[in-house]
Amino acid sequence: MKKIAVLGHGVVGSGVCELFYEKREEFSKKLGEEICLKYILVRRDYPNAAYQELFTRNFDDILNDDEVAVVAEVMGGIEPAYSYVKSLLEKGKSVVTSNKQLVAEKGAELLKLAKEHNVNFMFEGSVAGGVPVIRPMHRCLSANKIEKVCGILNGTTNFILTKMITDGLSFKEALTQAQELGYAERDPSADVEGLDACRKICILASLAFGKHVYPDQVECEGITAITKEDVAYAEAWGGVIKLVGTAVPMPNGKIDVLVAPRFVAKDNLLAHVNDVFNAVQVSCDYVEDLMFYGKGAGKQVTASAVGGDILDCLSAKGTVDSLTWEDSSESVVYDPFKSVFRMYFRFKYDEKEQLDEIREVFSPITELHRKDQPENEIAFVTAFDSASEFASKINVMNTHGVKLLGGIRLL
Amino acid sequence: MKKIAVLGHGVVGSGVCELFYEKREEFSKKLGEEICLKYILVRRDYPNAAYQELFTRNFDDILNDDEVAVVAEVMGGIEPAYSYVKSLLEKGKSVVTSNKQLVAEKGAELLKLAKEHNVNFMFEGSVAGGVPVIRPMHRCLSANKIEKVCGILNGTTNFILTKMITDGLSFKEALTQAQELGYAERDPSADVEGLDACRKICILASLAFGKHVYPDQVECEGITAITKEDVAYAEAWGGVIKLVGTAVPMPNGKIDVLVAPRFVAKDNLLAHVNDVFNAVQVSCDYVEDLMFYGKGAGKQVTASAVGGDILDCLSAKGTVDSLTWEDSSESVVYDPFKSVFRMYFRFKYDEKEQLDEIREVFSPITELHRKDQPENEIAFVTAFDSASEFASKINVMNTHGVKLLGGIRLL
Repeated sequence: MKKIAVLGHGVVGSGVCELFYEKREEFSKKLGEEICLKYILVRRDYPNAAYQELFTRNFDDILNDDEVAVVAEVMGGIEPAYSYVKSLLEKGKSVVTSNKQLVAEKGAELLKLAKEHNVNFMFEGSVAGGVPVIRPMHRCLSANKIEKVCGILNGTTNFILTKMITDGLSFKEALTQAQELGYAERDPSADVEGLDACRKICILASLAFGKHVYPDQVECEGITAITKEDVAYAEAWGGVIKLVGTAVPMPNGKIDVLVAPRFVAKDNLLAHVNDVFNAVQVSCDYVEDLMFYGKGAGKQVTASAVGGDILDCLSAKGTVDSLTWEDSSESVVYDPFKSVFRMYFRFKYDEKEQLDEIREVFSPITELHRKDQPENEIAFVTAFDSASEFASKINVMNTHGVKLLGGIRLL
Repeated sequence: MKKIAVLGHGVVGSGVCELFYEKREEFSKKLGEEICLKYILVRRDYPNAAYQELFTRNFDDILNDDEVAVVAEVMGGIEPAYSYVKSLLEKGKSVVTSNKQLVAEKGAELLKLAKEHNVNFMFEGSVAGGVPVIRPMHRCLSANKIEKVCGILNGTTNFILTKMITDGLSFKEALTQAQELGYAERDPSADVEGLDACRKICILASLAFGKHVYPDQVECEGITAITKEDVAYAEAWGGVIKLVGTAVPMPNGKIDVLVAPRFVAKDNLLAHVNDVFNAVQVSCDYVEDLMFYGKGAGKQVTASAVGGDILDCLSAKGTVDSLTWEDSSESVVYDPFKSVFRMYFRFKYDEKEQLDEIREVFSPITELHRKDQPENEIAFVTAFDSASEFASKINVMNTHGVKLLGGIRLL
């Protein structure tokens, strides 16, 4: 008999409990041994839950029960999740989690601890919900050198951008709709400012390139400044605007990591990832370009990933060596000012001379046009240049009285 | 020291050998033990290969060498591959392969044999080249019930259809281009008749639903009859034509498996999978709709999958239980005449009365129109109906002198 416990009983937690109630027999058959959910750690009552007898408010019940082999941490946040997970691993229990903040901030340490105790720390559900990404990356691509990871990693912002593109809504209108549908929280800042996507690209970058990338070291731009006009110019250019996380290893050993809205050309499959869907693209030396696509959030979707990890932990013989990365005392993130890309810009000018100057300063450019474009507005895409060069050019224009209305990187 | 051998030195075989030569040190580091390629079984000389000393023409050298733990079979075809793989598994060696014909026809038997000898039979490269599909399905989706698998499983036909759609080529012109680029063989029948895609959907169906589905039991329609006119009507309908393999478990315990061209709506991501790319969609009870996307063929791409399997076999402790399905003495394939779908049809008629009859017999229909449509041509999409009903309706029209010009299922 294999026994498991669940920490937390919110959306994901109740999903995991229901999954195990529904599929207990099937899972036992798969494992060749009976599997049983023994404890659920809660902080309040759930009078309607079918499994009252499993609730405990005392973490030590779980920690000190030698029968419990695997624990699912689905509380979210750093504390007390971090302390609990640490103690569990030290006690020789495997832990699985969908808590992206915990993995993004403490992953290297917890993976090391798991290895020291010959158990596992797994987190398939922390990125792109139930879409298999973590395990395919370290297990299936083991013969490959990963050269780039990027993706649409936040369903809320992708829903908002999709509504802005297909229904012509403003950011605010689309956000309101997302909130009404339950896709966005009342305080949507972690989503719309890009922090959630940032945590996920950090996890992917750490796994892909073997060094822990911390969210607070990464440049992160949200979608709150995106306008209908930007959407129209993206369309004129032949693409759409998506919030994309990217991570690319650089020749100096650092990793160029960024979360930002991007112009995505329509011949890139990412441009067609709509609504609350997520997609992760992985480029490798041998297998070239892959994409993994599916729903990035939701009770059952995330429970699927957590459940898969639990089954994997239960059948694993020791630590899965391929799921690992190292910590490092100094930042492994590439200087964002040196980062090179193409950009879309939109400027407002007053004089013909200013227009000439914009064209000269950013040359070579490809101008874009939209319906109802005011006479004193210019929009264009540039050639490749560094972030610092772009910043100094914008600064020049600024001092000459030209107003920047919008700027978005091309993917 | 872990030793491996490779059977075959064609496109994939040489790719695998080069991969191991290039990455030997890295792989050894990953495994925590040195890894070495000891034999390559060949049927002719390769005077330019860098590793002459590894070639052998005697299979028994490999079979009887107890040092060889894992063998990659990349010869293709049933014999001698099947006999070799059987003997190797019986000798307690794990085998990995990218040979879809072998897996589609002998998978259940070879998986059983592997389990009996506590070794592994892996075949990630047999479906969708290097795209991780097999392992994610049985490892990551273990908490899910799979409700449907479908996909674009053949790069050659997808390239041809893409050229027909984007460049307005005829089937013949597009095929010629594919042959010139090396994407299609001189005898392209296994690709364009759908047999290659059929083998792959059989492998996916067997894994997803646990029962061996044999290719010769599956209805399989190729793309040779697709015309530019069909492409134009698909566009008018709001989609594109793709060769899609599908597998859905039915309430009577059978599996509805089909390979056929389909009208795919543009809001389905499959419609945007172009050129030689493959994509597999998996629908599950918990994680809902997933898609795995990437290049489905090529030397390095397939070597990536074979290499990943070799590393997995080398680090596995015993048989991976989740990679399995059962054989069955009777066919598990659903009666294709009972299969239900919507269809697109194109008819040529002579009299107004015939037009009226077409409209009546297939009612309700949505008519489609294209540029330069002749006056006596009607095209439309139907409501859902069974294959047998569609067949009898076509038969009625046929006896009334109405000529069927085209018929394609909607996805």
